[in-house]
Amino acid sequence: MLIVKKFGGTSVGDKQRMYNVANRCIEEYKKGNDVVVVLSAMGKYTDELIRMAHDMDDKPPKREMDMLLTIGEQMSVSLMAMVMHKLGVPAVSLNAFQVTMHTTSSHQNARLKRIDTERIRRELDARRIVIVTGFQGVDKYDDYTTLGRGGSDTTAVALAAALHADACEIYTDVDGVYTADPRKVPNARKLKEITYDEMLDLATSGAGVLHNRSVEMAKKYGVPLVVRSSLNNSEGTVVKEVVSVERMLISGVALDTDAVRIAVLGLRDVPGVAFKVFDTLAKKNINVDVILQSIGRAGTKDISFTVNKDDLDDAVATLEESQERLGFKELHSERNIAKLSIVGSGMLSNPGVAAKMFESLYNEGVNINMISTSEIRITVLINEKDGIRAMNAVHDAFGLAD
Amino acid sequence: MLIVKKFGGTSVGDKQRMYNVANRCIEEYKKGNDVVVVLSAMGKYTDELIRMAHDMDDKPPKREMDMLLTIGEQMSVSLMAMVMHKLGVPAVSLNAFQVTMHTTSSHQNARLKRIDTERIRRELDARRIVIVTGFQGVDKYDDYTTLGRGGSDTTAVALAAALHADACEIYTDVDGVYTADPRKVPNARKLKEITYDEMLDLATSGAGVLHNRSVEMAKKYGVPLVVRSSLNNSEGTVVKEVVSVERMLISGVALDTDAVRIAVLGLRDVPGVAFKVFDTLAKKNINVDVILQSIGRAGTKDISFTVNKDDLDDAVATLEESQERLGFKELHSERNIAKLSIVGSGMLSNPGVAAKMFESLYNEGVNINMISTSEIRITVLINEKDGIRAMNAVHDAFGLAD
Repeated sequence: MLIVKKFGGTSVGDKQRMYNVANRCIEEYKKGNDVVVVLSAMGKYTDELIRMAHDMDDKPPKREMDMLLTIGEQMSVSLMAMVMHKLGVPAVSLNAFQVTMHTTSSHQNARLKRIDTERIRRELDARRIVIVTGFQGVDKYDDYTTLGRGGSDTTAVALAAALHADACEIYTDVDGVYTADPRKVPNARKLKEITYDEMLDLATSGAGVLHNRSVEMAKKYGVPLVVRSSLNNSEGTVVKEVVSVERMLISGVALDTDAVRIAVLGLRDVPGVAFKVFDTLAKKNINVDVILQSIGRAGTKDISFTVNKDDLDDAVATLEESQERLGFKELHSERNIAKLSIVGSGMLSNPGVAAKMFESLYNEGVNINMISTSEIRITVLINEKDGIRAMNAVHDAFGLAD
Repeated sequence: MLIVKKFGGTSVGDKQRMYNVANRCIEEYKKGNDVVVVLSAMGKYTDELIRMAHDMDDKPPKREMDMLLTIGEQMSVSLMAMVMHKLGVPAVSLNAFQVTMHTTSSHQNARLKRIDTERIRRELDARRIVIVTGFQGVDKYDDYTTLGRGGSDTTAVALAAALHADACEIYTDVDGVYTADPRKVPNARKLKEITYDEMLDLATSGAGVLHNRSVEMAKKYGVPLVVRSSLNNSEGTVVKEVVSVERMLISGVALDTDAVRIAVLGLRDVPGVAFKVFDTLAKKNINVDVILQSIGRAGTKDISFTVNKDDLDDAVATLEESQERLGFKELHSERNIAKLSIVGSGMLSNPGVAAKMFESLYNEGVNINMISTSEIRITVLINEKDGIRAMNAVHDAFGLAD
């Protein structure tokens, strides 16, 4: 069997944890399996690098940020190879150039295009554990890129797909996917199984266990995913196409407090206006989420949408630069909001799910600002201060408690 | 003009110094020159990485050490590109993969074989300052290598040769080459000019300003070198083929306290024995310096030689492993020694230089253990405790004082 194991920054945060990870990988290796390990930067090292960069330059070029950030994973993988060497097992660390991980040129938010598997295969054939840098890639100009948030998950899934791995295990500091974040909803319950689509909607709703790109890719290539804890041996949650257990109406509740709302007011009411706004943002690689379009005063249009708070400055600057071309009157932004989502395949065959959610929020006295739905997800925008209370109310209303 | 400027770790040790270096480079750039900057890792970061590695594994594999150490220079160059961006000048950082810097596969002690100049030329043509990682390379297996001590100097000289640069400036924390280390000989004098050969003999004698490999390469390709201070604008020392100023009998005195002596006693007195001993060490990439062979007891041979103290453990282990094959009786090592050298082209035409050196040591009551000479250098092995006193005595005897 060929197993890809991915460990996040917390799992390799210090020497003791590095040894724990190494021992888990060696256990697998000693069963006769081929083991590919994907690592993130240690602990909070990426944050430290970002801080160093901002100390030098308040607006560092993205190309140079990627050049700097990639050293975090190179540190983890080389140290991990040393730990395995110390434990008597042959291992080799590889960075994005050595693999090679080909990506687009979109710095800080690149997409994997193709992974060369030759070097990894050769190392596996020599019975070495192969330790690969997550999060990073190389573009066609031979420049380093990074995959953005949760990029190491994507690296792991993409490697599993490229190598036709028998399993892709994502190790994290939680022991699986829960009906809600247990830090916010104390009686949340761990799920044994979840579908790719549910996981995807949870990920885009801020549930945080897996990055949505990695789930998209797992679904596309049918990579069997397991989310497990790096701290204990509990079974974790399996993510796959169809789940076999009897289903609840919904699988989980997610709260995202990283979203901010931008309102573009007084747009001309002509065709293509919305397209121009979102195209302008897309060209800067700014992801837009919940969108609401409404009629403004005097025959104009208003458009509101959410973006991640990290993109707020960029989004506002981009829109202001294009104010004349887009033809809007005012631009507002609101930071104190939260996105609350419920996700579940059960919705497809059960009407009344939305009504039930809104009722529980009404009973709790929580005001809803905007609503957005997909086939298996309902998202509402609420005030940030109501977030955790609203989340618990909805979790209880759907009987998800442990 | 195309200028290569190399700055060591001290010169880029903190934010203020990074900005100083950036400003010096930008000054050159604004004259209309093409500027290539070679950087070492910041401050003591390489030492910190080595410490991290040894914390994980007391004998880390050299291949993985190189993978770890290369991140030090990648950090410097990306941060420097950000500083230049902040100062409004276009710059791009490049690592060994991006350049590409081709080396041998001898990890931790690789030699540059070939440098691709295409990417650098393209960036220079776009009027960018190009910031290149010193010290590192890539071997034919696509693995990172490092060039060993003083490797960044070698990178700079090699780049200057490959790019046919008009000058290669080595910036350091001293403002040139002195007749002796001013920290040890207070009345030492700065030299305006020195020949490649003298510089080479000083470098191999522990004078420390430039690494011998970089000087060898500069001589081979006729690269005009300047050693300057990164802290002030003083003129520095020019290193070239022939110097024009009137020459002193000797140019400098160097003391090397990093040497240790190994004695291999009771070797069989048959042809090829010395070859076997040194070939065994060479295969482990251990550089041997001052060598003395003498007649031992009962028709055997004794061989003594010095190695750098970092190589002592390796050298002893290697010899012990081969004891049977080499056929020696005992192995001794002595740490408390120092190598004192005088260097100068003036020796070629002036007999009596050695006698003068030995006389000054005799007057100072310093005992000489071993003697080794080249055309323009005389080295003696003395007790470490006599080092600085002996150095000053010789410096005075040859009238080198300021």
